[in-house]
Amino acid sequence: MKPEIDYTLYLVTDRELMSSATIEENVEQAIRGGCTLVQLREKKASSRCFYETALRVRQITRRMGVPLIINDRADIAAAVDADGVHVGQEDMPPEAVRKIIGPDRILGVSAGTLDEALTAERDGADYLGIGAMYATGTKTDAALTGMDELRDIRRRIKLPIVAIGGINKETVLSFAGTGIDGIAVVSAIVSRPDVETAARELKALFIKRRNPE
Amino acid sequence: MKPEIDYTLYLVTDRELMSSATIEENVEQAIRGGCTLVQLREKKASSRCFYETALRVRQITRRMGVPLIINDRADIAAAVDADGVHVGQEDMPPEAVRKIIGPDRILGVSAGTLDEALTAERDGADYLGIGAMYATGTKTDAALTGMDELRDIRRRIKLPIVAIGGINKETVLSFAGTGIDGIAVVSAIVSRPDVETAARELKALFIKRRNPE
Repeated sequence: MKPEIDYTLYLVTDRELMSSATIEENVEQAIRGGCTLVQLREKKASSRCFYETALRVRQITRRMGVPLIINDRADIAAAVDADGVHVGQEDMPPEAVRKIIGPDRILGVSAGTLDEALTAERDGADYLGIGAMYATGTKTDAALTGMDELRDIRRRIKLPIVAIGGINKETVLSFAGTGIDGIAVVSAIVSRPDVETAARELKALFIKRRNPE
Repeated sequence: MKPEIDYTLYLVTDRELMSSATIEENVEQAIRGGCTLVQLREKKASSRCFYETALRVRQITRRMGVPLIINDRADIAAAVDADGVHVGQEDMPPEAVRKIIGPDRILGVSAGTLDEALTAERDGADYLGIGAMYATGTKTDAALTGMDELRDIRRRIKLPIVAIGGINKETVLSFAGTGIDGIAVVSAIVSRPDVETAARELKALFIKRRNPE
């Protein structure tokens, strides 16, 4: 059975941007601040380094009760018994990943447009990462997804949706009323001097807009 | 059941060095020249590109009756139903890869020393790639393995052994009497103007030394 996932505050790691000495510290602080889901993303590390980091991060997320998603690498996800895999449009197609990870792991797919979102839903995604919503230092070549497109996707797709790309204390306010399930955040958490507080503040700001009284 | 593999002439692809317009052409020409095994290696391509190339190369190797090994990525090997995976010391550990690919696919491991070779054998490798034997443009930072070390490894290890690293029409002569099963070749095949003839000539030179009358 697939685990129940709380998508509210989805941490995506970045070794180059992080303020902490290690990924493990960074992740632990972010979870203490309220991150509900962690994606380990290693775009430049060797496979051995990615695998060994995933083993260490897996211990932290298990101990703290938060699911771990592995970016791009279905083999590493299966090898470390992670909770799922996230693939972008330049990664393996969702159907191929599903064959490796089986029916019980979570499969997330990035989509920038309604077409990509509908395709990902049809191909077996469990949730969608929609964006990039705002310009970001971590994906400088990304085309931006408009708010209208995000609302269209929300109307047409039943899967959980998280927005990603340039989400910080200012831009998070713009998701009020969009009906998304969560926000995925890189630099506005991992690069902050106080990772835990940054996570806590962003989460409070988002929840207030998602669930208005 | 594992397939029987002929390790005599093992082609390792290189998109940047190849003389042909496409990897598929390059591989087809090399197999026509007598390559007995193909490893698809894509160190810079996106996962999507690697996967799609593997699907196309898989068609060629199937049609021509030669096994296909995928470098580093157990998920891509499983997804395209390749015959095996090859990992280096910077890739996932052999035991972790074995869990993904199952008992019936071939698992190759790179080793530069007797210690690494013994470890790889213990960890479930089906064959070893020993080297780099000679300086090479494709792995400029590789430490070289000496001929004495290669002979030591051959004496101590029962697995099939292929030598790799800077093997060309001159250096191939040095493997006479070493008892290795095959040679793995990158640039001396893939970058030649006539890939097919380059493969045929290298194979004849190696076989003559491996099986002296």
